[in-house]
Amino acid sequence: MFIKAMSEMIGTFILVFIGTATAVIGGKETQIGVLLVSLAFGLALIAASYSVSRDSGAHLNPAVSLAFFLNKRIELNVLVYYVISQLVGACAGSYTLKLLLTSNPNASDNLGQNSFDSVGPWFAFSSEVLLTFIFVLIVISATGKRRNPNMAGVISGMGLILVHLVGTRITGTSVNPARSIAPALFVGGEALSQVWVFIVAPFLGATIAAFVGKFFLFTEN
Amino acid sequence: MFIKAMSEMIGTFILVFIGTATAVIGGKETQIGVLLVSLAFGLALIAASYSVSRDSGAHLNPAVSLAFFLNKRIELNVLVYYVISQLVGACAGSYTLKLLLTSNPNASDNLGQNSFDSVGPWFAFSSEVLLTFIFVLIVISATGKRRNPNMAGVISGMGLILVHLVGTRITGTSVNPARSIAPALFVGGEALSQVWVFIVAPFLGATIAAFVGKFFLFTEN
Amino acid sequence: MFIKAMSEMIGTFILVFIGTATAVIGGKETQIGVLLVSLAFGLALIAASYSVSRDSGAHLNPAVSLAFFLNKRIELNVLVYYVISQLVGACAGSYTLKLLLTSNPNASDNLGQNSFDSVGPWFAFSSEVLLTFIFVLIVISATGKRRNPNMAGVISGMGLILVHLVGTRITGTSVNPARSIAPALFVGGEALSQVWVFIVAPFLGATIAAFVGKFFLFTEN
Amino acid sequence: MFIKAMSEMIGTFILVFIGTATAVIGGKETQIGVLLVSLAFGLALIAASYSVSRDSGAHLNPAVSLAFFLNKRIELNVLVYYVISQLVGACAGSYTLKLLLTSNPNASDNLGQNSFDSVGPWFAFSSEVLLTFIFVLIVISATGKRRNPNMAGVISGMGLILVHLVGTRITGTSVNPARSIAPALFVGGEALSQVWVFIVAPFLGATIAAFVGKFFLFTEN
Repeated sequence: MFIKAMSEMIGTFILVFIGTATAVIGGKETQIGVLLVSLAFGLALIAASYSVSRDSGAHLNPAVSLAFFLNKRIELNVLVYYVISQLVGACAGSYTLKLLLTSNPNASDNLGQNSFDSVGPWFAFSSEVLLTFIFVLIVISATGKRRNPNMAGVISGMGLILVHLVGTRITGTSVNPARSIAPALFVGGEALSQVWVFIVAPFLGATIAAFVGKFFLFTEN
Repeated sequence: MFIKAMSEMIGTFILVFIGTATAVIGGKETQIGVLLVSLAFGLALIAASYSVSRDSGAHLNPAVSLAFFLNKRIELNVLVYYVISQLVGACAGSYTLKLLLTSNPNASDNLGQNSFDSVGPWFAFSSEVLLTFIFVLIVISATGKRRNPNMAGVISGMGLILVHLVGTRITGTSVNPARSIAPALFVGGEALSQVWVFIVAPFLGATIAAFVGKFFLFTEN
Repeated sequence: MFIKAMSEMIGTFILVFIGTATAVIGGKETQIGVLLVSLAFGLALIAASYSVSRDSGAHLNPAVSLAFFLNKRIELNVLVYYVISQLVGACAGSYTLKLLLTSNPNASDNLGQNSFDSVGPWFAFSSEVLLTFIFVLIVISATGKRRNPNMAGVISGMGLILVHLVGTRITGTSVNPARSIAPALFVGGEALSQVWVFIVAPFLGATIAAFVGKFFLFTEN
Repeated sequence: MFIKAMSEMIGTFILVFIGTATAVIGGKETQIGVLLVSLAFGLALIAASYSVSRDSGAHLNPAVSLAFFLNKRIELNVLVYYVISQLVGACAGSYTLKLLLTSNPNASDNLGQNSFDSVGPWFAFSSEVLLTFIFVLIVISATGKRRNPNMAGVISGMGLILVHLVGTRITGTSVNPARSIAPALFVGGEALSQVWVFIVAPFLGATIAAFVGKFFLFTEN
């Protein structure tokens, strides 16, 4: 379990640091910024799946771990260990980015936090539920026992690219409570007051995905 | 058959929702928009091939199913089930996008429908026949029995990226009647009056591909 | 041999049509245009390698076939068949693009031909020799007997993307005499008078790659 | 050993030539330039891993070789051979680019050297340590004995893309002393006076990665 916790922690550290750093340094307001951010999150998930986080299954996301728990693919104590490791890794990622930016004379004051400023809470909430549903459904089907295990990480990463292509202009795309909580903690203020959307909506989307996967697609454990 | 129908339905839902949402939110008039839309459709096909739609073969496209039927790789009743599932999934995708956009204060009034406004019906028709021919020829050869089954979904998705690189500035690229019918139904008006091009041309291109594949490349069942 | 000739012909048709159409429709003057053209040629080579051209080895390029012949991996008669098939396929690709553009009211007057107008013949020649050397060296090592056959097509396609990233702003990137001869024939004029560079330089680069591969990397047959 | 030294030399030649040429010709100041440079370095590493450098393990980077040596995966004499080969290959890449640009009438006066002009030495140093740590950690875990050997090169290349997405706007991204020393030697002046950062920081980051990999992730030899 120690190695799995370390795997989730380091994997989530890489995912959150690279993803949010790309958003901060590259900007996510332009179309090419959307592409860079989508590739950063998606390729980071793929790379972590086959390297630092392979032993743990590379969830790197409390919403994914919740869906695995709901479909009885992991035990409750594993869920708790995983979520804690993911939160610690995500916070390490955001804190590292904060430290790095402090030493940059041209630093901006954001850490890639999610926000519903441009679209309002309802649009943000519904798009996060929907995109997490799609992402988690892809992950839980791709990792089923009868699927090709060599492809599982690649397909999950493509799923993350897909939802970022749609969601980055809307909320910056969360679909991952750890990815949203960490920058919100270090930025504070409005980011922290909006973070509930990026916790509740991904967990809701993941729950629906677990249900649809189990009863409509018969995804295996 | 139930699980195959659900697979085609959910897979086509993801393909059409992600693809058309990327076109609507990101724009398809610029070169980078072309890249985003191409990647959205192509990666969605790859992801669905190895996850939600794996059991069905992941056609997600009535034109592909027609080519499989013409080359006797699926029965007529399977063709009918598949096409109905694809249409239901595509309509669910367009309707979800419509609902989502309604809650967006900045919503535009399009759902990513195909159109021949900028080039006229003849250029649109001939380019759709040609691009569907190329796409379906890649799919039916890549899925042949003697080919590497681990690569089939990846190659089909690359084929979809390729035809989008060329066609997105012309018509938005259909090569898939389900992808065109669904947004046209919910947009109505001109989109609906032009949709015949994006039904007839893909079916014609797929028929030519099935013929060329069978008699020139001897693709296997 | 019939199926191999058809494979090379159809594969080269797809490569040249998709690649040059992307260059014509998308433009290759901008950085994003460079990316679109690079992806179009590279992904087309990958897709063709695992689908329509798998039986032939998917050379789709007289320079690649020459290197295989020089290292005694194919016979002289196969070289002749392959080169003729590639030229026929490439001409079909350029002619199809010409026909398609004729029906487009906004048609420009180019077919994606290579040119050394912006850099002069010497820079064009030396960059084509160098880039073909790199591309063909990657192809002949990746297709060696002891290499992973599942990766060969993917790696060759990545090699084609790589040389396009560098060469597209210089000459449009040939590294493939068939890809250059076909549009030059249908455009005529200056394109035809410059085409010798894009025949001689790729063949020279491929010859050096065959030599370096054999005597420095010991690539296998 | 001769073939391994040649493999590292030719692989590093391709990596440095393609990567820095893309930075020089395409520019790295824009977001799309960041994407082009990231893809050039990452895809070059992947292509070299499965073609010209497969026998050597495709380090192509003294910092990676150092981490392998520290974790006792290669002997000291192999480390020395590899680093010399990588430096020779990298210098050949930069010199070739210099020659090529000399014949270009529109030549700029840079060879893609790294620089901390825009951010200062401390930010450059800390970001290079951090990004090399992440990159080398991905490489040493992905190449572990129990991992899928077919994926190792692909994952390492994705790791290189990831760190370029973040670092290209900061320093041009080194994470590889050979990639930095070679252009600095041929450009001289300020590039040479700053090159110590791009030697010390990558070696430091690789050392930390070797330590973390061994004691926290138990990466295998």
